[in-house]
Amino acid sequence: MASFQKVGFAGLGIMGARMARSLSRKGFKVQVWNRSADKAKALEATGMGVAATPADLAASVDAFCTCVADPAALREVAFGAHGLLQGARPGQLFVDFSTVSVELTRQLERAFSERGVDFVEAPVTGSKNGAEKGTLLIMAGASPDAFSRAQPLFEAVGEKAILCGPVGAGTQVKLAGNGLIAVMLQGLCEGMLLARKAGVDPRKVLEVVQASGFRSPYYDFKGKAFLDHDYETHFSIDLMFKDLGLFLDSAAHHRVPTPLIASVREVYQLARAAGHGAQDIAAAAEPLRALSRNL
Amino acid sequence: MASFQKVGFAGLGIMGARMARSLSRKGFKVQVWNRSADKAKALEATGMGVAATPADLAASVDAFCTCVADPAALREVAFGAHGLLQGARPGQLFVDFSTVSVELTRQLERAFSERGVDFVEAPVTGSKNGAEKGTLLIMAGASPDAFSRAQPLFEAVGEKAILCGPVGAGTQVKLAGNGLIAVMLQGLCEGMLLARKAGVDPRKVLEVVQASGFRSPYYDFKGKAFLDHDYETHFSIDLMFKDLGLFLDSAAHHRVPTPLIASVREVYQLARAAGHGAQDIAAAAEPLRALSRNL
Amino acid sequence: MASFQKVGFAGLGIMGARMARSLSRKGFKVQVWNRSADKAKALEATGMGVAATPADLAASVDAFCTCVADPAALREVAFGAHGLLQGARPGQLFVDFSTVSVELTRQLERAFSERGVDFVEAPVTGSKNGAEKGTLLIMAGASPDAFSRAQPLFEAVGEKAILCGPVGAGTQVKLAGNGLIAVMLQGLCEGMLLARKAGVDPRKVLEVVQASGFRSPYYDFKGKAFLDHDYETHFSIDLMFKDLGLFLDSAAHHRVPTPLIASVREVYQLARAAGHGAQDIAAAAEPLRALSRNL
Amino acid sequence: MASFQKVGFAGLGIMGARMARSLSRKGFKVQVWNRSADKAKALEATGMGVAATPADLAASVDAFCTCVADPAALREVAFGAHGLLQGARPGQLFVDFSTVSVELTRQLERAFSERGVDFVEAPVTGSKNGAEKGTLLIMAGASPDAFSRAQPLFEAVGEKAILCGPVGAGTQVKLAGNGLIAVMLQGLCEGMLLARKAGVDPRKVLEVVQASGFRSPYYDFKGKAFLDHDYETHFSIDLMFKDLGLFLDSAAHHRVPTPLIASVREVYQLARAAGHGAQDIAAAAEPLRALSRNL
Repeated sequence: MASFQKVGFAGLGIMGARMARSLSRKGFKVQVWNRSADKAKALEATGMGVAATPADLAASVDAFCTCVADPAALREVAFGAHGLLQGARPGQLFVDFSTVSVELTRQLERAFSERGVDFVEAPVTGSKNGAEKGTLLIMAGASPDAFSRAQPLFEAVGEKAILCGPVGAGTQVKLAGNGLIAVMLQGLCEGMLLARKAGVDPRKVLEVVQASGFRSPYYDFKGKAFLDHDYETHFSIDLMFKDLGLFLDSAAHHRVPTPLIASVREVYQLARAAGHGAQDIAAAAEPLRALSRNL
Repeated sequence: MASFQKVGFAGLGIMGARMARSLSRKGFKVQVWNRSADKAKALEATGMGVAATPADLAASVDAFCTCVADPAALREVAFGAHGLLQGARPGQLFVDFSTVSVELTRQLERAFSERGVDFVEAPVTGSKNGAEKGTLLIMAGASPDAFSRAQPLFEAVGEKAILCGPVGAGTQVKLAGNGLIAVMLQGLCEGMLLARKAGVDPRKVLEVVQASGFRSPYYDFKGKAFLDHDYETHFSIDLMFKDLGLFLDSAAHHRVPTPLIASVREVYQLARAAGHGAQDIAAAAEPLRALSRNL
Repeated sequence: MASFQKVGFAGLGIMGARMARSLSRKGFKVQVWNRSADKAKALEATGMGVAATPADLAASVDAFCTCVADPAALREVAFGAHGLLQGARPGQLFVDFSTVSVELTRQLERAFSERGVDFVEAPVTGSKNGAEKGTLLIMAGASPDAFSRAQPLFEAVGEKAILCGPVGAGTQVKLAGNGLIAVMLQGLCEGMLLARKAGVDPRKVLEVVQASGFRSPYYDFKGKAFLDHDYETHFSIDLMFKDLGLFLDSAAHHRVPTPLIASVREVYQLARAAGHGAQDIAAAAEPLRALSRNL
Repeated sequence: MASFQKVGFAGLGIMGARMARSLSRKGFKVQVWNRSADKAKALEATGMGVAATPADLAASVDAFCTCVADPAALREVAFGAHGLLQGARPGQLFVDFSTVSVELTRQLERAFSERGVDFVEAPVTGSKNGAEKGTLLIMAGASPDAFSRAQPLFEAVGEKAILCGPVGAGTQVKLAGNGLIAVMLQGLCEGMLLARKAGVDPRKVLEVVQASGFRSPYYDFKGKAFLDHDYETHFSIDLMFKDLGLFLDSAAHHRVPTPLIASVREVYQLARAAGHGAQDIAAAAEPLRALSRNL
């Protein structure tokens, strides 16, 4: 069992709210905070406490977690005037589940470790369903000790946590994973769109893929969503676009050519331009379908 | 059991030679032909007959199969001066396992059905290992009757045969599958190259991918090959480049935008330019690695 | 002055009809042929003769020219049952103004030189206006002798003819030129679209470009057409798409990576998918503008 | 003549040093500052004064200019502990010739106008030669009044200054211009590389382009440099890569799809990966040439 009982959670979007509930279900006493208060209110009804600011949140718990949309939001929550750093005290644990830049996660580690707080970078994959069921996959970047301390939290929200290396490594691996998801989905959709336009049932493409050595559980999930035009948001196009941008920023920094990731980002840009930014990534190829009056 | 005993096989490359052996193992009397005679000689030693020309091959069997590298080769084998069509007779079955263009498979169907021969388009996936073990996946395009007739052959060389629609549909689905393989592999390699250059063990990328919802048996196979620089040819870069070209030709014909497939073809072009054309597709990202002095 | 007086012209599209008129104005006796007879009729009224078939055309003149849309059309005109080759006789001159593949122009040279006919490959640039005024630029591929013989024809339709090398070289240079036009126009449009969306007058982009060291007469012509949504066809998106495809086929054959040309072809594919194929290339970026509700 | 006599210049790279000399030649009393002092020393010998810090520079002049490599450098020079802002006083004029982000130029305008300093955004094009001869093209973003005040400086360093709109507009137009330069050069090189590999003299491509309606002075300059492998730096690959990144950041912000600029940035990434970052953009296609053992 954990050496801490009271856990704070800042950022109650699609992922965060579900992760907070998982922690609560596992017996942690959970305090929450969110920029727009209504989302915190909704969880208060389920027995969680609500903090007025991130600083108050940090001050009232043993360990605190964040899961926010982008680097700017995380900077504000952590380093803002009433940010977590203002309330933090030695001996605490800070686990960030967001996907941000390597640069920012390292900055967080430096700032909080100066305050005596252990920092663990822990981006997740598994989208809304995984968050709901507590079966997320966690890509951690941390010292081995901090990683061990975070295990009880990981067990509450996830199925598996893999230590990828020191802080920064988790983000790097997460970005690789999201880039891969984007090209897998787009590759499948391009093949299905072409098949359909050529008069072939696109479900045959999916059937063959799933009978092949390159099958993946992911294709069932997203392939069907695309064919059914079911774009309810599990992971939004805007968020994926942000992650592909972080991937390319890292590639630029390290001077690694990644032409396919650059190309798939433009597909997402097209989808955003056409107004699909808030929809699920299953809609990424929607403009290509619409333009070619397809499917 | 099959209504035919004697089966011809033309085209004894990496895939064809193994498929001919599978047929032989399953009890068919196999006749073979290959453009360069030495490959046929090698099989003669295992008890198969060798025909002097494709026409002779067709004349001496109940059913005949082809598995050649590209449209030009198939045209020559089927329609050349001593091609299969010259030896064919009513009631025979012709199964083509090559990946060529929809246009050509339809032309084959027309020409051979005029001669009373049932034609089945049957491109395969599963690469060298699948051909070796008789566990290929077959994407068939045929009339339901012709598809049924071909079952005994399919059971000898493959694990599963999916009827995708009339002749042409098998090729269309195969091209979608190969396009997907190319982007999956390239997406994985770009993430691993970036991780490595950023100081993160690329095997952690592979470990996370294979623990995630977007895992695929394919990643184990090819991801490790790339990390180990093991480029022994199962499916060559030149052949994949040809298939990506067929995909784009079909997309051009049907006016379907497929920007990701266009982009990945350029990665293969880079690999061909750098002299990797005959190597396995695991080497597709090799020029990016070499240029950035990576891994 | 020319050693020949009677000139045939097959292919009376946007370019061909205007070139035939230029030849007539310069004093040649012009015979014409076109697949759809109405276009030939229109020229008959201006005093030109009309031949019933390409073979008849070739039989009735000293030199004959072609300007058709694609390789398939040229093959039919040259090699068809009633093609030019059927009517050709020793000592004639054949000048092809079409843009087709290197492979086909070489095939034409072989076939016609066996008949004793000099062949000159002569793709042109300058679009409709240049054809109208007789100011085309001609990229010739020919022996020096054949090139000299063709001068009177070149002077009638063009401003300048450059001998690029033997047959094949003209097409290669033409494809390079068209690829360049496509990226120039798309590069300009992307900058103007972004400027406009960012609240900056896109005409300022054009003004700066035209005051800079990278100015080009072409930008005035097409930049204004794009800003004014003036898509009257001078050179159609479908034809440019064909030429970009020929460029990429040649790049595939020679194993030269050309990622930018591959990328711009997808922009044209998008435009074709959206139904702009018959419009001028000034409309190539129209789907990007429409999707992003821009300009 | 100008209402100011003493002009400061911070940033003495390839462009800045030459612009400072132009100002001096035109009769301004020029003070300079550079991060690495040796470059300032070199100008001191020609009669210019050297300031110890940007703050000292601003304090000792009537108007001050900057020309630095990227946003981070400009932030430090303007807002750092001893930055320009510390030395600025009401009534001064600040002209920034750097190419940075719209966001940063607007921030500069706000901060300096609060101090009573007029700010003019003035990115330039024309590269080393234009800076040397004082024939740069200036893309200004400013209020009409501030733009007028800056005229004497513009006349000293440039041939023409175009007011593109308020602060931000100059950068937007500059980014469009640099994006266009990158695709023009790459489009030309891909065509020349293919021609050469196909056995055609690439100078014929250049000759035809320069005789055509899409000719541009730029092609002479850079086309010959590429053919001669003359990569002496006028405008470096690293700087162009930065500008293409700024273009794409702006496109991401405004949700405008710009697939061609995204694609050409990857070409520059390839060149950087291969170690050409500090060379001239004429070397951008060098890795494609090297890989395909071309030219």
